[in-house]
Amino acid sequence: MFEIACIIAYICSMNKKGFASDNNSGVHPQIFEAMAKANKGHVKGYGDDPYTREAISLFQKHFGDETDVYFVFNGTGANVLSISGLTQSFNSIICPATAHIAVDECGAPEKFSGCKLIPVQTSNGKLTPELIKPHLHGFDFEHHAQPKMISISQVTELGTLYTVDEIKAIANLAHSHNMYLHLDGARIANAAVTLDLPFKAFTRDAGVDVVSFGGTKNGMLMGEAVLFFNPALATKVKYFRKQSGQLFSKMRYVGAQFTAYFENDLWKSSAAHANKMAKILAQKVETLGVKITQPVEANGVFAIIDNEIRNKLQEKYFFYPWDENNNEVRWMCSFDTTEEEINDFCSSLEELLNG
Amino acid sequence: MFEIACIIAYICSMNKKGFASDNNSGVHPQIFEAMAKANKGHVKGYGDDPYTREAISLFQKHFGDETDVYFVFNGTGANVLSISGLTQSFNSIICPATAHIAVDECGAPEKFSGCKLIPVQTSNGKLTPELIKPHLHGFDFEHHAQPKMISISQVTELGTLYTVDEIKAIANLAHSHNMYLHLDGARIANAAVTLDLPFKAFTRDAGVDVVSFGGTKNGMLMGEAVLFFNPALATKVKYFRKQSGQLFSKMRYVGAQFTAYFENDLWKSSAAHANKMAKILAQKVETLGVKITQPVEANGVFAIIDNEIRNKLQEKYFFYPWDENNNEVRWMCSFDTTEEEINDFCSSLEELLNG
Amino acid sequence: MFEIACIIAYICSMNKKGFASDNNSGVHPQIFEAMAKANKGHVKGYGDDPYTREAISLFQKHFGDETDVYFVFNGTGANVLSISGLTQSFNSIICPATAHIAVDECGAPEKFSGCKLIPVQTSNGKLTPELIKPHLHGFDFEHHAQPKMISISQVTELGTLYTVDEIKAIANLAHSHNMYLHLDGARIANAAVTLDLPFKAFTRDAGVDVVSFGGTKNGMLMGEAVLFFNPALATKVKYFRKQSGQLFSKMRYVGAQFTAYFENDLWKSSAAHANKMAKILAQKVETLGVKITQPVEANGVFAIIDNEIRNKLQEKYFFYPWDENNNEVRWMCSFDTTEEEINDFCSSLEELLNG
Amino acid sequence: MFEIACIIAYICSMNKKGFASDNNSGVHPQIFEAMAKANKGHVKGYGDDPYTREAISLFQKHFGDETDVYFVFNGTGANVLSISGLTQSFNSIICPATAHIAVDECGAPEKFSGCKLIPVQTSNGKLTPELIKPHLHGFDFEHHAQPKMISISQVTELGTLYTVDEIKAIANLAHSHNMYLHLDGARIANAAVTLDLPFKAFTRDAGVDVVSFGGTKNGMLMGEAVLFFNPALATKVKYFRKQSGQLFSKMRYVGAQFTAYFENDLWKSSAAHANKMAKILAQKVETLGVKITQPVEANGVFAIIDNEIRNKLQEKYFFYPWDENNNEVRWMCSFDTTEEEINDFCSSLEELLNG
Repeated sequence: MFEIACIIAYICSMNKKGFASDNNSGVHPQIFEAMAKANKGHVKGYGDDPYTREAISLFQKHFGDETDVYFVFNGTGANVLSISGLTQSFNSIICPATAHIAVDECGAPEKFSGCKLIPVQTSNGKLTPELIKPHLHGFDFEHHAQPKMISISQVTELGTLYTVDEIKAIANLAHSHNMYLHLDGARIANAAVTLDLPFKAFTRDAGVDVVSFGGTKNGMLMGEAVLFFNPALATKVKYFRKQSGQLFSKMRYVGAQFTAYFENDLWKSSAAHANKMAKILAQKVETLGVKITQPVEANGVFAIIDNEIRNKLQEKYFFYPWDENNNEVRWMCSFDTTEEEINDFCSSLEELLNG
Repeated sequence: MFEIACIIAYICSMNKKGFASDNNSGVHPQIFEAMAKANKGHVKGYGDDPYTREAISLFQKHFGDETDVYFVFNGTGANVLSISGLTQSFNSIICPATAHIAVDECGAPEKFSGCKLIPVQTSNGKLTPELIKPHLHGFDFEHHAQPKMISISQVTELGTLYTVDEIKAIANLAHSHNMYLHLDGARIANAAVTLDLPFKAFTRDAGVDVVSFGGTKNGMLMGEAVLFFNPALATKVKYFRKQSGQLFSKMRYVGAQFTAYFENDLWKSSAAHANKMAKILAQKVETLGVKITQPVEANGVFAIIDNEIRNKLQEKYFFYPWDENNNEVRWMCSFDTTEEEINDFCSSLEELLNG
Repeated sequence: MFEIACIIAYICSMNKKGFASDNNSGVHPQIFEAMAKANKGHVKGYGDDPYTREAISLFQKHFGDETDVYFVFNGTGANVLSISGLTQSFNSIICPATAHIAVDECGAPEKFSGCKLIPVQTSNGKLTPELIKPHLHGFDFEHHAQPKMISISQVTELGTLYTVDEIKAIANLAHSHNMYLHLDGARIANAAVTLDLPFKAFTRDAGVDVVSFGGTKNGMLMGEAVLFFNPALATKVKYFRKQSGQLFSKMRYVGAQFTAYFENDLWKSSAAHANKMAKILAQKVETLGVKITQPVEANGVFAIIDNEIRNKLQEKYFFYPWDENNNEVRWMCSFDTTEEEINDFCSSLEELLNG
Repeated sequence: MFEIACIIAYICSMNKKGFASDNNSGVHPQIFEAMAKANKGHVKGYGDDPYTREAISLFQKHFGDETDVYFVFNGTGANVLSISGLTQSFNSIICPATAHIAVDECGAPEKFSGCKLIPVQTSNGKLTPELIKPHLHGFDFEHHAQPKMISISQVTELGTLYTVDEIKAIANLAHSHNMYLHLDGARIANAAVTLDLPFKAFTRDAGVDVVSFGGTKNGMLMGEAVLFFNPALATKVKYFRKQSGQLFSKMRYVGAQFTAYFENDLWKSSAAHANKMAKILAQKVETLGVKITQPVEANGVFAIIDNEIRNKLQEKYFFYPWDENNNEVRWMCSFDTTEEEINDFCSSLEELLNG
């Protein structure tokens, strides 16, 4: 094992912290500590334990007492549950063409819910009532998958944000057609920080019906919460959670993490840091002449960079191309990104650009 | 939060370690430590990291180089993946009526794979060729779901074990009908300890095609592995893992756990302890006149106990009834069960019996 | 084409009317005539036509005004729709192990509804409360597929019948557990004739919630109806019918057939004839010493016959083995079976037996 | 019944043959006659009969000996089978946004196959390699539904046609990415007539892998065929046909229809007539100043017409709006449309336009 440990250490040293994804980061020490504290004795499985109950009560503090909270393993699980809980297989779900549910989940929503996804082209990852309306037809017509849900991401997959009013407008449109509004909040903490609003203000209070609340991308080991604001609608959810393989036996370790996440607003300082780092990164690369393609409203930076330079840069830092046809790349910052790393990264980039 | 911490401490002190399930236990300290060590810096997500690679190589050491290893979150996820990887929706799967896939997964196998489950009554949770054969008909007949898989559990849900020869006989029957043999190894470590055999001897070498290898019930936080012994058959699996919501972004924390699990045969000492505790528990309750209903071959004890006494005992110790019609209960031991706890439990039971 | 016509004529002459299945028969002339009459001009598609409306109103006459009627192509389609309309994917359905939905639909119910089927062993194809009760557990327990439907066949797949009281007892049991009772009526006309009761008496009035009403096996070209007795429960059905591929564009041809089916009680005379032929067949083969294994209560005869003799008999008459392990065969009579054919068949059988 | 017959007659006289859909027509007399001739005696069910065999051999004459032919009830059934036969649930299917599978099947393809549909905006219902290419990415990347099929309609839902070269270009693109090309031929006869080519020339010979061959819209009662040109790929199909509820017990009546359909090229004369009527209709309404929005290449006419006029016209003739936002309507001609009906319709339209 010594040998192996050496190899690992070597590889890790090679793998400088990059800007690939906020899920390439580890677990925030305070969150890890909370799991360690929970690692004592026996408790009942599957959520019937004090850690889970405590975390649920914290969610209800943030989102309102009448919130049904279901913990799951990951974002795909959360989205599948959000969708299945409020739809039948003959429904359709309107979402941006860039939505995680449309692009990054290997068809999980269709497979589990049976629903049709209707991807809508956008310039910035954001739906608007105008973009949605052309798809609101065929109601009661059995040949047509029945529109039942609008799904938006906050933060969007392009790092942009909806204002409260923008969400309200979409929620009103949804409800006026007897539809539901889902918010994919894989990076909801980063949104709350930029908006400088409580979670509730741009979800429940803005008319959102169900939220996928992400923890993993902001310093948790794993753990997401599905939040239904009208418990009467969530009667099927506990069964779907089990049937979709998302019911965790040792649930206490998610409960303990979320409790630490909310304690002293750890979620906020972590997300604020990530957002700040992204701002700095964007400013620095802009001064190098790099074009930023989307407003930097959270912890992601989208930029245009020549393919050859990108390849060389990726030898030192792992990150993902976003739109290869347009030489667009994505750089993500996380709770543990440091300014030094940004400087380092920008120096390398500068060298290549001047190369 | 202080108040909450107090409440938790109080509740935990109330929750004596019971015999409800091996997943009511926490995480083995060595495994927890391994996660802590892995909690440094950034690594690529979704399994492309050194921790995961190391764990995979350890699995291949135990099960043979030609083993495709897919880590998932939990047992339901592992079983769904094992099934889906080797079947089409028009197939059927023959399993004991007591199988976890048949009874305890809220229909997850049917939902994801589309397959029909054919539950077979057994006396001890074990299939035999004789029990299986009456269901091997209708091949090529399109009206009939096509039998394609036999699924057995080792340890069974009744705490019993298959011998290597028994598994071979079932595997031969399966293969002679162009079918596959799946082994649900949620408690595979407990089986290996009792059989005193390497994992490979009663899986790959006995003709098993795919294994759900469990870690959670033997001291891991979470983490199971799906093992395909013929990688040519597993071409669909990586997509199904993602589509079923079982692809973990921060996979390193499963990798690190499994590496610790195999190091110094931690899996073996943990399972051996649990098995030993079950033996002791069974002996002690038997001396109290309690009837044991199944041979105690692993870490579970099945016993008959009067309903009234059960209810009183449950006030002190949480555990599950198994078959309420027959007053049968299940007591599970785990890696951290102590003899003192058993004595304590038996004293309480004795008092009630002597009531 | 002349040549082909000759070949067809030759083959048909070879294919004596046998006793394979009531769906090997053709279309009753009066029903065919009704389609011919409907074959004029244009009408709207998908059921918005006078023929379909007329047929629906006839169903409502027979089953009560508050009956939602959905025409589909075939029995598998009807059963899938009956199930899907009243369940969620996490539900289970209790049925006899011999049920068509369990044995003869290649897993269609599981695939479309996601539900688990729980097959129950019976001696005569009939469920009883006693046989059902052991499966009524796990309610509200999310690990367990939630029992939501009991499904019985009337006539059963073994040619036997439920009395009204037997159905009522099962319906009461279902309803007391917040479950539904489905009746697979692929041969419902044959049942009504033997019971000498209106359809309504042993369906709606006995507590059945949804019926698959078959027409094909009693002289129609194709066409079944799914009947929901509480329209409030059937809100999903029109969408599921389309989504399951069971919405017929030229629906008028099913409507016209069912109208003819009900006119002058054609359904009754056809089914009565088939039942009578089965009685005669059974009596005749019994006099030859053949053992009849099930009471002949409708149009099917189940008998034990030596394999060698069966094979020889099948050279002249096509029919299906039922249970090859027990040398059991099934002979079905239909609306167009003649006594002469029975005599002919019995003569052949007699020769072989005396052979 | 006399009363009912009168009502029906009255309603039918009200329902002048309109231009709603080619499935509002009845059954061609020669096809009906063929069913009548087949309505004799008993034949085996589910396709094992001489009528079905004869029809299959005719398909093989038209499409090549190596063609696997599966008859189904309707177009949705055919498309679902075409898709399921060649995909896994983690695949995606690229199709025009106007495709029947995307718009008119209530999500049946997603529900049964689990696949994701990727709808592509087009101006005329036709895909091109340029429109497809941006969606050909993410291969081997498990987060992304794997592109496996391109689906085109010939005739398209907008009444337009692909040339053989256009189909070849798409087929080549598909095959170069290890994908399949599906052709939805609900109106394939109308396409063959305009192209003046044998079916094979623009399907198998152009690289198409699987065809949904429609009969219903060109004078059949019901009946479509799924054609796989590489039988080695179709091994799952017979099971999926049964599992999807598309296996017809009295299959002979589809077989007999298709035989009549091919005899003396009835399919061709019927489709040629419908196409001709559409041409005449288009010319006549154009002389009235109505704008035609798509080239009239088959039996459909798409036109812009003021909403108020449309409503009045619909009082006399039932037809569907196509795109209400743009005042676009669709008029379909069928094998039994007459010039007199067109004249009548145009007179009414003229009156309204001048009104």
